[in-house]
Amino acid sequence: MGYDGEIAGGYAALLDVAGRVNDLLNAGSVLSWDARTMMPKGGAGTRARQLATLAVAARDLLCSDETKRALDAAEAELAARPADDAEVRATAQVREAIDYHERIPAELLHRKTELGAAAHGIWAEARRTADFAAFAPTLTAMVGINREMAEAIGYDGHPYDALMYRFEPGTTKAGLDVLFARLREGMLPLVRAIAEAERPRSDFLFRHFPVDAQMQVALRMAERIGYDTDRGRIDLTVHPFEISFTRQDVRITTRVSPDYMPMSLFGALHEAGHALYEQNVDPDYTRSPLATDLVSLYAVGGVSFGAHESQSRLWENHVGRSRAFWINHLDEVRAAYPGLLDDVDAEEFYRAVNRSEPSFIRVEADELTYDFHIMLRCELEAALIDGSLEVADLPEAWNAAMKRYLGVDVPDDANGVLQDVHWSSGQIGTFCNYTIGNIMAAQLFDTATRGEPGIAAALEGGDYAPLRGWLTEHVCRHGRRFSRDELLTRATGRPLDPEPYIAHLRAKFSDIYALA
Amino acid sequence: MGYDGEIAGGYAALLDVAGRVNDLLNAGSVLSWDARTMMPKGGAGTRARQLATLAVAARDLLCSDETKRALDAAEAELAARPADDAEVRATAQVREAIDYHERIPAELLHRKTELGAAAHGIWAEARRTADFAAFAPTLTAMVGINREMAEAIGYDGHPYDALMYRFEPGTTKAGLDVLFARLREGMLPLVRAIAEAERPRSDFLFRHFPVDAQMQVALRMAERIGYDTDRGRIDLTVHPFEISFTRQDVRITTRVSPDYMPMSLFGALHEAGHALYEQNVDPDYTRSPLATDLVSLYAVGGVSFGAHESQSRLWENHVGRSRAFWINHLDEVRAAYPGLLDDVDAEEFYRAVNRSEPSFIRVEADELTYDFHIMLRCELEAALIDGSLEVADLPEAWNAAMKRYLGVDVPDDANGVLQDVHWSSGQIGTFCNYTIGNIMAAQLFDTATRGEPGIAAALEGGDYAPLRGWLTEHVCRHGRRFSRDELLTRATGRPLDPEPYIAHLRAKFSDIYALA
Repeated sequence: MGYDGEIAGGYAALLDVAGRVNDLLNAGSVLSWDARTMMPKGGAGTRARQLATLAVAARDLLCSDETKRALDAAEAELAARPADDAEVRATAQVREAIDYHERIPAELLHRKTELGAAAHGIWAEARRTADFAAFAPTLTAMVGINREMAEAIGYDGHPYDALMYRFEPGTTKAGLDVLFARLREGMLPLVRAIAEAERPRSDFLFRHFPVDAQMQVALRMAERIGYDTDRGRIDLTVHPFEISFTRQDVRITTRVSPDYMPMSLFGALHEAGHALYEQNVDPDYTRSPLATDLVSLYAVGGVSFGAHESQSRLWENHVGRSRAFWINHLDEVRAAYPGLLDDVDAEEFYRAVNRSEPSFIRVEADELTYDFHIMLRCELEAALIDGSLEVADLPEAWNAAMKRYLGVDVPDDANGVLQDVHWSSGQIGTFCNYTIGNIMAAQLFDTATRGEPGIAAALEGGDYAPLRGWLTEHVCRHGRRFSRDELLTRATGRPLDPEPYIAHLRAKFSDIYALA
Repeated sequence: MGYDGEIAGGYAALLDVAGRVNDLLNAGSVLSWDARTMMPKGGAGTRARQLATLAVAARDLLCSDETKRALDAAEAELAARPADDAEVRATAQVREAIDYHERIPAELLHRKTELGAAAHGIWAEARRTADFAAFAPTLTAMVGINREMAEAIGYDGHPYDALMYRFEPGTTKAGLDVLFARLREGMLPLVRAIAEAERPRSDFLFRHFPVDAQMQVALRMAERIGYDTDRGRIDLTVHPFEISFTRQDVRITTRVSPDYMPMSLFGALHEAGHALYEQNVDPDYTRSPLATDLVSLYAVGGVSFGAHESQSRLWENHVGRSRAFWINHLDEVRAAYPGLLDDVDAEEFYRAVNRSEPSFIRVEADELTYDFHIMLRCELEAALIDGSLEVADLPEAWNAAMKRYLGVDVPDDANGVLQDVHWSSGQIGTFCNYTIGNIMAAQLFDTATRGEPGIAAALEGGDYAPLRGWLTEHVCRHGRRFSRDELLTRATGRPLDPEPYIAHLRAKFSDIYALA
């Protein structure tokens, strides 16, 4: 019963149907946000059905005859345009996404969804009792389904490549091996040296900070870096996240520990960094394939999960954990907590929020040790997928890697192999995004601050508009028009390059810990 | 790409697809709730697109070949079942809804939606400036489109019947004329007599009541009558409403005036009454056509808009505005507002919240005068639709009816013909629900309290469980299985009957105002 009397031409018709796919995906995002912030507990069961229906409706519409007819016509209409034309790129992404989804049999997708629904509870109970054996059969089935997914999607090198495609297109196991080796080479000496060095003072971070004041500080700091609350809002959740329903409504949450203040503050800066990406996508791309991830079926404008993480990490770590940030803002933060931070100066605060210490838990890891948690997961996942590692041997392999990389002894599987939710939901192949984001953040920040001296000077003075302007111009506004490496090459002159990241970590931690 | 390998049999397949229609409609409801409670202002434009897409997707799925195939099979499968079997009824409602939607041309629906989108701003500006002439051309177009809708839908008697069908199936202009005449005969003498009577004291309602305390009282009173916050929540909005996303998540809002306390309290009781209907629909009907209004495309379990209003009015007026309620709960309310209600007793409070006075504004009207606002709207709407009244003559007709019914002189069109939002959104034919709800509330309450003496005694003691149980048994649990008059006949022995309502008003207001 669709009424399309007004839609003329191939590309216009394609935009119309892709806009409706975007609407359905954004509706799913609103329902997810609500489920995580507002929903009464009784709503969980039927909400899951609503989310599943929206995802299927979006995929069905994307792969419908209506879309294919519009796509054929759009390709014909745009045949003479240059290859990097925005409309050509939008059209190509619809084609690519349909090809991707049609390679995955409905029956396989259904089995994956069913298993994911059942697996969550089994994993949660196994983690609660630190009993890996209770989760192992489910994980074995999940690995098997992901192998089938990899074969269906197809790959040139390693089956893990096919699984990473959804999250970080173009990333390969072979490429990650090279990248990770270089990171370890650059970072392990720092980890080792810091283990021997004197720890900075951090007692003042563990005082009792009122929850309301923490939420106010979190919001104020997010606004300081440019988060627009006319098109967003902040809420309190157990796990912080950012989510958008077009660039016009980009919401963040943060978590609050009453006895550890940095969690709410850096959580908010991190999520605000994600939010700045979405809020600054070109308005003309709204609802279009250039602001919709049609492969992953998320209505986001960021070009890859790693590129998205680059923006959150840049604002959290390169800005929020910088010395200048605390010289500029400690007084303001101190004023929000009367009497609690009177005995600390900006230099002490800066050092405290940058202290590094190996730990078992990924989500609590610091800037320097975080990537080791990622490397071990990517390596184990790839080995599970290619069959060189059995699920039964996974805890031992996990614990050995933790010892090898960070020198820690994992006390039990709840603090080890069972800690992450990802595998229980069937997600294999997404962890690399975090480290790619860290690398990309450093590469972009390095170019921005070296290339235009006004940006560095502004940061010293607590003015974030020039940096935000540079990122908008070179990253955010393009949405999904360019691939991640095209974007990096246009912005920095080269594709993904770990050297600025290693240099950043070396300079920062050598300074803080007075390393040789 | 739907995977339906598991769905066997006609009715099971029909339930599956109808469940997905319900999911899409509920998703729209979540987006509406969010837009009215949480959304930052920047989100309005793209949110409207998302809502439109969900509505079209739901209607398209309902009218799809998949649904029709399942429907044919379900009808064949259930052919031997009795006529009032729940599955037979569910199947019939899908058939009826598809027939309804297919009678309305897509092009006409599109024009109506477009006009509605443009009309809202024009109406709001016209109301702001009290300039009916500025809205008249838009209203003329809207009346024209509604006439076309009526012709497309079809009717036996009056074209207005076709428009009321969406909201209150089976209601006719001829039937309303008889009903309204009887109401006026019963109610006008009361209005006239009260105009001459002494006014009860009400000064204490207009003191300064803190907003937070009002919200807490509102929630506590809603819980007292049985609203389940494990499957709901209350928020503060400018216009109060109830909305549900299956019986598992039924939310209410109320509005708060800091200087007039009854607004938040009775708003919450009213919306909680709506919520009790949805929360108490048979769990087995969840996501089914018996909990989805497939004609109106709202995912609600109530059988008609009037039936829904009967539950809100019953709890607001027959329970919340009863003498017993204030004997039982004034102490608790007083405790929430230290020092503010010390000089008032339960009898004074009861009289104050039941005082009656003619006014211009429908949403502020009291229990006795409210229906006159409805009658005048229904009469004018019907006359506009059959062409016996021109839009240009509407203000004069409005003001004359206000004078005739309530004896008031409308000061300007902002306080008269321009006050309601309904016409600007294209809704004509829905006002009758309010009065039908009032009549039905009294009829149900009368039967419940006369038929089972335990109910009346429990109410005297502040125990609402027996009444709620009776309503669940006779009304709520049935969802949309029976028509409104079938439901009333099963519950009270007869279809809609205004006599208990007139008797209730006469008894209550004669008592309060000491009328002869």
